[in-house]
Amino acid sequence: MDNQGVLAVISGFSGSGKGTVMRALLEKYDNYALSVSATTRSPREGEIDGRDYFFRTREEFERMIDEKELLEYAQYVGNYYGTPKDYVMSNLQAGKDVLLEIEIQGALKIRESFPDAVLIFIAPPGAAELRRRLVGRNTESPETIEARLRRAEEEAQQMDEYDYLLINDNVDCCVKELHNLIQSMHMRMKNHLSFAEKIKEEMKQI
Amino acid sequence: MDNQGVLAVISGFSGSGKGTVMRALLEKYDNYALSVSATTRSPREGEIDGRDYFFRTREEFERMIDEKELLEYAQYVGNYYGTPKDYVMSNLQAGKDVLLEIEIQGALKIRESFPDAVLIFIAPPGAAELRRRLVGRNTESPETIEARLRRAEEEAQQMDEYDYLLINDNVDCCVKELHNLIQSMHMRMKNHLSFAEKIKEEMKQI
Repeated sequence: MDNQGVLAVISGFSGSGKGTVMRALLEKYDNYALSVSATTRSPREGEIDGRDYFFRTREEFERMIDEKELLEYAQYVGNYYGTPKDYVMSNLQAGKDVLLEIEIQGALKIRESFPDAVLIFIAPPGAAELRRRLVGRNTESPETIEARLRRAEEEAQQMDEYDYLLINDNVDCCVKELHNLIQSMHMRMKNHLSFAEKIKEEMKQI
Repeated sequence: MDNQGVLAVISGFSGSGKGTVMRALLEKYDNYALSVSATTRSPREGEIDGRDYFFRTREEFERMIDEKELLEYAQYVGNYYGTPKDYVMSNLQAGKDVLLEIEIQGALKIRESFPDAVLIFIAPPGAAELRRRLVGRNTESPETIEARLRRAEEEAQQMDEYDYLLINDNVDCCVKELHNLIQSMHMRMKNHLSFAEKIKEEMKQI
């Protein structure tokens, strides 16, 4: 499909700033739709159901799994996270670029079902900066911070699987780079196969 | 190599405007180096040896082939065209993005020796517009224009082989898109493998 949107799967260590970058991207440009994940974890302060996540009970979540209403799902630190399917598909078909912020297991599952998905990893400039950002949030216990750092260590082992890496040392730059990257993906030959067929036919006539 | 330049191989039908787009790109941004091809064809009016092409005799060109001084070469409408190797390699290593404007056979040969090369095809919005542009040049005989159109018809059959397609219906837009595309290629994970290794090591320490 020539005019289909791009599915951009975005991951990054907790503390990489990916949430801030994605919010800025959505504010600045009109062509994006943010896929809202479903989760069984508790809302953090300020998080709103349906905007940040669809907060669901385990029973509700397991029903969605059974009904195949999820594009992918995974467990992370004892909770389910998953991507409701309908919203992603309808937005892509409408030509919107869909942003999926998910963790690494989910990202790799998405690639299996959508080989055209673009997998983007957002990293801080270094591990020390990651710790500084996590501590600076002032919302999490030292134990949670340690758990997030150990999780980041695990995730780092798989980051090579991603197609693109953005180093977030400046939010504004990172937003611009992410936008340019996703827009460039529209130029992939596979997004222009109808055009290619059309011009081949025209060439025969002219 | 994390800081190596991107090799962008750019092709397009004669009359697609790719020459204009590339000149504008080089004028507007500092990070590009244009690979100058060697050829045995005669200079067109205004073309300068060493800027537009290295104009060589058949004997000189065949000596370059024998001495393996060319990255690729091909024949097109009875003339040799080829890419001198040294300039491309030294610029990539210096972190410059190298632009290679070559025809389709050469582009596919480059991909064989450089799998990291990005193959970009520039097309006009349609075949009728291509004819208008060729006629509008006022530099070529009707026979040459017909030969170019028939060649374009052949080339169109292989355009699907390219990684990216840019439709040039506005030079300024096309220049910006091309720049964003090439710069986005710096974010490929394979351009960041040293960074990925570094952050994995740091994570173990922190």
